[in-house]
Amino acid sequence: MARNIIVINPNSTTRVTAGIDAAVDALRIPGGPGIECVTLQAGPPGVESQRDADAVIQPLVDYVHARDNEADAFVIACYSDPGLHSAREASAHPVFGIAECGLMAALTRGERFGVLSILAKSVPRHLRYVRALGIDSRLAADLPIGLGIAELGDDARVMECMIAVGERLRDEHLADVLVMGCAGMARFRDRLEDAVGLPVIEPTQAAVTMALGAVCLGQRGRAH
Amino acid sequence: MARNIIVINPNSTTRVTAGIDAAVDALRIPGGPGIECVTLQAGPPGVESQRDADAVIQPLVDYVHARDNEADAFVIACYSDPGLHSAREASAHPVFGIAECGLMAALTRGERFGVLSILAKSVPRHLRYVRALGIDSRLAADLPIGLGIAELGDDARVMECMIAVGERLRDEHLADVLVMGCAGMARFRDRLEDAVGLPVIEPTQAAVTMALGAVCLGQRGRAH
Amino acid sequence: MARNIIVINPNSTTRVTAGIDAAVDALRIPGGPGIECVTLQAGPPGVESQRDADAVIQPLVDYVHARDNEADAFVIACYSDPGLHSAREASAHPVFGIAECGLMAALTRGERFGVLSILAKSVPRHLRYVRALGIDSRLAADLPIGLGIAELGDDARVMECMIAVGERLRDEHLADVLVMGCAGMARFRDRLEDAVGLPVIEPTQAAVTMALGAVCLGQRGRAH
Amino acid sequence: MARNIIVINPNSTTRVTAGIDAAVDALRIPGGPGIECVTLQAGPPGVESQRDADAVIQPLVDYVHARDNEADAFVIACYSDPGLHSAREASAHPVFGIAECGLMAALTRGERFGVLSILAKSVPRHLRYVRALGIDSRLAADLPIGLGIAELGDDARVMECMIAVGERLRDEHLADVLVMGCAGMARFRDRLEDAVGLPVIEPTQAAVTMALGAVCLGQRGRAH
Amino acid sequence: MARNIIVINPNSTTRVTAGIDAAVDALRIPGGPGIECVTLQAGPPGVESQRDADAVIQPLVDYVHARDNEADAFVIACYSDPGLHSAREASAHPVFGIAECGLMAALTRGERFGVLSILAKSVPRHLRYVRALGIDSRLAADLPIGLGIAELGDDARVMECMIAVGERLRDEHLADVLVMGCAGMARFRDRLEDAVGLPVIEPTQAAVTMALGAVCLGQRGRAH
Amino acid sequence: MARNIIVINPNSTTRVTAGIDAAVDALRIPGGPGIECVTLQAGPPGVESQRDADAVIQPLVDYVHARDNEADAFVIACYSDPGLHSAREASAHPVFGIAECGLMAALTRGERFGVLSILAKSVPRHLRYVRALGIDSRLAADLPIGLGIAELGDDARVMECMIAVGERLRDEHLADVLVMGCAGMARFRDRLEDAVGLPVIEPTQAAVTMALGAVCLGQRGRAH
Repeated sequence: MARNIIVINPNSTTRVTAGIDAAVDALRIPGGPGIECVTLQAGPPGVESQRDADAVIQPLVDYVHARDNEADAFVIACYSDPGLHSAREASAHPVFGIAECGLMAALTRGERFGVLSILAKSVPRHLRYVRALGIDSRLAADLPIGLGIAELGDDARVMECMIAVGERLRDEHLADVLVMGCAGMARFRDRLEDAVGLPVIEPTQAAVTMALGAVCLGQRGRAH
Repeated sequence: MARNIIVINPNSTTRVTAGIDAAVDALRIPGGPGIECVTLQAGPPGVESQRDADAVIQPLVDYVHARDNEADAFVIACYSDPGLHSAREASAHPVFGIAECGLMAALTRGERFGVLSILAKSVPRHLRYVRALGIDSRLAADLPIGLGIAELGDDARVMECMIAVGERLRDEHLADVLVMGCAGMARFRDRLEDAVGLPVIEPTQAAVTMALGAVCLGQRGRAH
Repeated sequence: MARNIIVINPNSTTRVTAGIDAAVDALRIPGGPGIECVTLQAGPPGVESQRDADAVIQPLVDYVHARDNEADAFVIACYSDPGLHSAREASAHPVFGIAECGLMAALTRGERFGVLSILAKSVPRHLRYVRALGIDSRLAADLPIGLGIAELGDDARVMECMIAVGERLRDEHLADVLVMGCAGMARFRDRLEDAVGLPVIEPTQAAVTMALGAVCLGQRGRAH
Repeated sequence: MARNIIVINPNSTTRVTAGIDAAVDALRIPGGPGIECVTLQAGPPGVESQRDADAVIQPLVDYVHARDNEADAFVIACYSDPGLHSAREASAHPVFGIAECGLMAALTRGERFGVLSILAKSVPRHLRYVRALGIDSRLAADLPIGLGIAELGDDARVMECMIAVGERLRDEHLADVLVMGCAGMARFRDRLEDAVGLPVIEPTQAAVTMALGAVCLGQRGRAH
Repeated sequence: MARNIIVINPNSTTRVTAGIDAAVDALRIPGGPGIECVTLQAGPPGVESQRDADAVIQPLVDYVHARDNEADAFVIACYSDPGLHSAREASAHPVFGIAECGLMAALTRGERFGVLSILAKSVPRHLRYVRALGIDSRLAADLPIGLGIAELGDDARVMECMIAVGERLRDEHLADVLVMGCAGMARFRDRLEDAVGLPVIEPTQAAVTMALGAVCLGQRGRAH
Repeated sequence: MARNIIVINPNSTTRVTAGIDAAVDALRIPGGPGIECVTLQAGPPGVESQRDADAVIQPLVDYVHARDNEADAFVIACYSDPGLHSAREASAHPVFGIAECGLMAALTRGERFGVLSILAKSVPRHLRYVRALGIDSRLAADLPIGLGIAELGDDARVMECMIAVGERLRDEHLADVLVMGCAGMARFRDRLEDAVGLPVIEPTQAAVTMALGAVCLGQRGRAH
């Protein structure tokens, strides 16, 4: 009877899932749909390459299929939107990808969006996806924050780099809205927005918002 | 203290406002933001031309400005998104347009969107806007339902025409998601979706969903 | 009997109208259409925001409608093309916007156009419009000249900044034709062209040229 | 001392030149630039293929170069704009192509342009050019009138076919402005506009209008 | 020592592999690279959905990785290009997808390409890919041949439907080059080309051609 | 009986033809088509302007037509693809342009292509062509190497500049594949690829690869 949104972190790092859980907490409304954040055990520690992204599809789709009766909507919480179209084929409910939703939400808040990526090697993958979505004319730029793996554990350093990249996106590339290009950046959102002075879209929040509406409105998916 | 979304119908026809109010009722969650639907008294009976759309901007922006302290987000409930950017300049809170939100929501539900318009003469205005949003590569087509003013009062006739146009959008133009190109079509949404077998986006619902998320997440606007 | 083009400066600053009048003087041909430049008294001193642009629409359209019998064509002399489509609905004669005409004229003179804007905050508005026109693939960049209001009165300073921005558009963004993104820049055109070595389009001149042809050829508008 | 626009018909059919001359007569203003229409003797009887279009470039550019001292602007009056960029390199004055100018003028009169071509085999060449101009998002369609060479001499038949194609462009492809895709169609313009009820751009008129403005304003070309 | 191209049919139907083998036989040059066509045992009988396409990625990438020392280039012979980017990450040699290569080859043979698909439900997937490649402005249409699974075994019936769809792509959608949207259509290529009178690209032939050049020229891949 | 590809260098500099001949030598496969590289005696020493490019069309098309019985495919080995469509009209065999083929090949090797041009003044011509091909969304940038004519004879200096520009294309413009924008750069390909670490497409090699496949597969041209 109770309505439920399942948010799947397709990497196996539970710390990331905890961050996602905190990020969407404000969208848990008394009387509204539940929001359950889960970790895909079979996933890699992180999605850094196309191989990583492709490798999570099978377990992710299996997970969606297995729990389709328990959910009213699914959110895939990885900025590569791995398996999004497969998951839609596997579910009778709406399935949202955080990149797709984060980017569409950004288009309602600004004229040109800038994306902050963790790794330089993700940028071509992101660009390909932005073009597949048909919205590349509104992309300001997608820039990596330029930190090595070791440095990613140092929050102060990450924040500093994000702000520097956010300023470059704003000043050199004329972005007027920013999108965090990773599900694990949520805790920096407020400070980044304050520092750069532009709206910052945290993509999991954007996708859960879409899911919230879909569930309240009783929208169906398109299982075949 | 209580959070509030104000949905403005910029035409003066209260029957349309009542329809909008019913359409968004499912998004009123007990512990969530209030959703107040209002009629812009100074608006024309309907927005049928660019002149109509432009004529409502001034009173609409004045309204937003006057009630900015009472709202956490605004929704402009006319598919021409009249005054959207002006209203954003006039408010410290996020302002959403139903065309912009309806179209972006459609892009998360299908590959090619078809729009159902009331009047043929609105189509060029809609096309111009779709291109301004930078998403014309995903437009299947925007087709008028082809009814005269007199016939618009006959719901059975309207439904019949909508289904016929929805089928053309699906079969001839290969749309796989439909957007209702008018704030006053909400009561036909469910039946259209059932008849045509594609997701149908009611744009006010899409915009209020976006507003709901923005309010819960405490997002700010960009008043200058 | 005599043919007449009415050029409307939608801001109330008569000095700007005088500049426009001088800019189009070379297009006053003995035996050709008259060119009357008028100031919209109800307009703001300048159009700097979307609110300003939207606020002039109503009086502008009223003006066009009131004088439709006295004109064979109208030109709206503000680079935001405020009310262009509304004015077309209100007139039986062709109505030209200076941004639209300036940009189209630029496309016949170079491969990539650069725009010089007065204010940074106008840039997103301009970009939205360029995309709505469907010509964003030919935009090199739109850059503000970066002067505060106080400095705009200092012509030598303005000229210097325009040349610096024109050189950046040429050298960093590979523009090979420039468009002045404001109706009030005409007096700098010749010197800018000489300094930068690229064709510089003054948009009111471009629009009056279009109007001149339309009037000579007896073209009609599309009043509904 | 007197200013002069030279309009070059790059095919050798003097009847076409006479038609062009009549089409631009309304743009001869007593105190304005002279408009001289000439036939390129070395051209083929008509430009029907890419080979035809390419074959006229050399004599056309030679002609421009030879008469550069006698002209203030040139117009190349063939809808393939043959040699346009070469001619610009060969002249110190602005050189306009009728396709480029006709299409840009159309963009100031409607939202989606339809092109009427003589021959089906010209359509791919036209499409390639529209895309090279970066304005394909505004093309409704380019349709041949579908007459064999023999039938082109029968004006009543040509008019009938043009109207039928104009109606298809309007009704099936949603064009709201038409462009004549050939320099030799001018005599049908008025009747086509009346029959179809949309603005019809005759491209040589559009190009001579641009040239008129350029000459009055003293604009220079870009000879290297 | 001998150079070798491995062509992988990612579905498990050996009859399809045999057809591919025959299709590329003309590219086996005595002194040139060997061309080995293999069946991915772990694949499904056919790739009909996104789930099918995604399901083959893992075994496909494993296969590429396992045989990377035995190949100088790989071709993935499924029109969905499953796992293309992952396979590139897994190999030190160039990896070609037949959709990507077939589409790029088509762009060197015609102005607008039409695609013949087996199933209607593949069309949105194809459109998304065409847009991700950034070449949607040259797509005429992608149409299914409209046969049920049972009828696909009847070659005469398939040929008849392909010709009918090819003619529609040519006549209604103005395609001037066709691409076969499936690796299993090769045996119909010659007859389709003769019947429709347009170049027909068989995508595996296109990809093996690219691979042939890459191997002869000693090009490397980009394994990370 | 023996199959033959004729590669035409449309400039008259035999040293360039010799470089082309060396560049395609790896594509001469025992048992495969012959590859004959010829110099167009009537061409200019180099193609540097649009006038140069247009001037070679007539002799080039005559050459193709004269030797059409001796060839199974033609390659036009100049990065402006002069006369490509005319040559196709003049031949019963496939005709390939090196810019078209080089760019399409690049799209199968990377996400964003960067072009290295000899002269700054060629860049607008290149950009126009990239847009005419409809692939501008994948262009990173086209940058001149910035050497005067005198310096082009100094190979060490050319190499140095190419590497510097290749690095700028990679680092500032995010290109991940490079295309040499001139038929005469082949001898630098390997070293540039090694220095910059990205795939480098030599366009004549790309076009001859396409021709090789077309000849082996018995593809026909489209002479009219």
